[in-house]
Amino acid sequence: MRFGSNNTPFEREEFAARLAKTKERMAQAGLDALYVSEPANLNYLTGYDGWSFYVHQGVLVGLDTAVPIWIGRGQDVNGARLTTILPEENIVGYSDDHVQSQAKHPLQAVARVMRERGLERARIGVEADSFYFTAKSLEILKAELPNARFVDAGTLVNWVRAVKSAAEIGLMRQAARIAEKTMARAIEVIGPGVRQCDAAAEILATATHGTEAFGGDYAAIAPLMPTGVGTSCPHLTWRDDPFASPAGTTVEIAGVRHHYHVPLTRTIYLGTPPEKMCKAADVVVEGLEAALAVARPGAGSRDVHAAWTKAIERHGFFKDSRCGYSIGLGYPPDWGERTISLRSIDETVLEPNMTIHFMPGLWLEDWGIAISESIRITETGVEAFCDFPRRLFVK
Amino acid sequence: MRFGSNNTPFEREEFAARLAKTKERMAQAGLDALYVSEPANLNYLTGYDGWSFYVHQGVLVGLDTAVPIWIGRGQDVNGARLTTILPEENIVGYSDDHVQSQAKHPLQAVARVMRERGLERARIGVEADSFYFTAKSLEILKAELPNARFVDAGTLVNWVRAVKSAAEIGLMRQAARIAEKTMARAIEVIGPGVRQCDAAAEILATATHGTEAFGGDYAAIAPLMPTGVGTSCPHLTWRDDPFASPAGTTVEIAGVRHHYHVPLTRTIYLGTPPEKMCKAADVVVEGLEAALAVARPGAGSRDVHAAWTKAIERHGFFKDSRCGYSIGLGYPPDWGERTISLRSIDETVLEPNMTIHFMPGLWLEDWGIAISESIRITETGVEAFCDFPRRLFVK
Repeated sequence: MRFGSNNTPFEREEFAARLAKTKERMAQAGLDALYVSEPANLNYLTGYDGWSFYVHQGVLVGLDTAVPIWIGRGQDVNGARLTTILPEENIVGYSDDHVQSQAKHPLQAVARVMRERGLERARIGVEADSFYFTAKSLEILKAELPNARFVDAGTLVNWVRAVKSAAEIGLMRQAARIAEKTMARAIEVIGPGVRQCDAAAEILATATHGTEAFGGDYAAIAPLMPTGVGTSCPHLTWRDDPFASPAGTTVEIAGVRHHYHVPLTRTIYLGTPPEKMCKAADVVVEGLEAALAVARPGAGSRDVHAAWTKAIERHGFFKDSRCGYSIGLGYPPDWGERTISLRSIDETVLEPNMTIHFMPGLWLEDWGIAISESIRITETGVEAFCDFPRRLFVK
Repeated sequence: MRFGSNNTPFEREEFAARLAKTKERMAQAGLDALYVSEPANLNYLTGYDGWSFYVHQGVLVGLDTAVPIWIGRGQDVNGARLTTILPEENIVGYSDDHVQSQAKHPLQAVARVMRERGLERARIGVEADSFYFTAKSLEILKAELPNARFVDAGTLVNWVRAVKSAAEIGLMRQAARIAEKTMARAIEVIGPGVRQCDAAAEILATATHGTEAFGGDYAAIAPLMPTGVGTSCPHLTWRDDPFASPAGTTVEIAGVRHHYHVPLTRTIYLGTPPEKMCKAADVVVEGLEAALAVARPGAGSRDVHAAWTKAIERHGFFKDSRCGYSIGLGYPPDWGERTISLRSIDETVLEPNMTIHFMPGLWLEDWGIAISESIRITETGVEAFCDFPRRLFVK
């Protein structure tokens, strides 16, 4: 890692293509500029990579300016110099009295940059429902630039991200190798009497060591590993308590390369699983395979969901939640891209190189099961990133 | 973990005390209700614990109602049943077509609860600059309850959290044991030719295994470990590249118990450190100790900062950023509480059982150094949570 070199895993041309696609959507939306605050979008457009997203920071994209501007905390300017492809003059730091302060707000610094770039009367898109763009962020921008018009650009950049490049797919294939290793390790270490935290430690270590050829990155979501009655809910993490037997545990992890995620979920049962769980596992796998058989370019996101729903309804199961979502680049709190959701109200038509975590799970009254696959839409159908048995694991 | 039992590490009385203090501040601010969206505040007031904060969720506190209401995604309702102390009727789930959807927004579900509880004309506080309360969140609430008044409650609950209970201090002391073990492991594994990811894996494993008596939880910030020129910026994580020698690496980690953090930072130098780095290490330790000598009940946050600044200025160093911040309960993206910042513009007067990460670091043109302590303000001075040598580690 050196100042002045491209320290990202992508060629400069790839960033140029991302920016061009972003500007195309900006033009369609009638935007003069776009203020991007979601960490994954910052990384996507500039390469920026640091755990500095606990303070306000963003990237300003002008429709008529060649290069975006990174605006962040002064002490992170060197991080921007090292990790982005931006020239020095496009990196702007604000002083530390803007940080979590009553005196000054970082969006005032952002507004200054907007004014300097002649955007006082511009139509400026913001990511109004991004977790990194607060109600206060918008209020400050409106107060500082009363003659500008701020409009919700929604998930504009996220939609550019939805179709992956060859280089991105390459990273996701590496992430898949890490996901397989990590899930294998989870199945190995989860056992009766083993503390949940000790299993989590081994899962995290395996995911981060990666392989001999390439290492793992931190995931945008901690390992989820609800156990026992906890499996009735997908989002619990670990505790000190040991795993009981008989009981099921659902493990959802991701392999990660340069913040590109390939999630994978399996359920592990210690002891002899009840008949209903074995049955549910078969149903989930049947539904998963029915759905994957439908997924291809030109099919609707909703068609994939319908195939899943139809398959499980035959067996008396019903699930109201989405059964998958777009994945790729992610920072906490989410490895999903907040664009495609596989469900009946989604209007996406699938395209080659869209990447999706197909996440069929049944979360019932006091137990649950989930068996997932991360997939890529190919020219003709589906590639599963991971090669990992699709079944309930019994130990 | 069972339905119907208190699965939190705190007594119900402690939650009652937290709620009472919150309502006291609400009354002072003239609020009829408060909508809380920061994950740490949800946990603090109800016990809620799950990695579901990538979708909108919150807790509604009514000034005149006995118990808060948790509002979240339908599939997380069982998680709320298992992890909170709330009765069944105070847990409200919204349907999945609210999730990352154009059709419905989760804050519409929140607004429905507000209407049902007679808050159509109420003065309702929101956490307007919390990363989990978006610009869109506020827009939806205003549209749904046009006769209510929404006001920025700032970091109201965070300020309640600023003074810790005996039970919280107990968890932080455990977290300190984990922080010590984790830092010791980091110093052990970082070496010439070792891949950064492999060191990160060992750090994460050690932090999560915890001790034989108690396990570790996930931290709100990934291990920060900038190396070489990266040490000029505090917030870089790891890459595949091996550690070089001679070069410095700054490791910032936390021990974590039930989401209570005790951060710790040290710089490790492989090879023979340059004279300027040894000097800087001495200056940082001198500044640290000068500041800790001042910190006590009745002293100002700014006095502590002034002691640090004065000590380092004597040696020709200047640092414009804050040199510490309030810590405790945290979820990604921050283990800081966003209340107290040790700096000249901060007006906090220190009280017993405030807990602070005193984080003196020097981030210079192309190198840096940091040596930190997490501290508790005692009745008479300061307790350092960790017992770890305050020096530059040379290997």
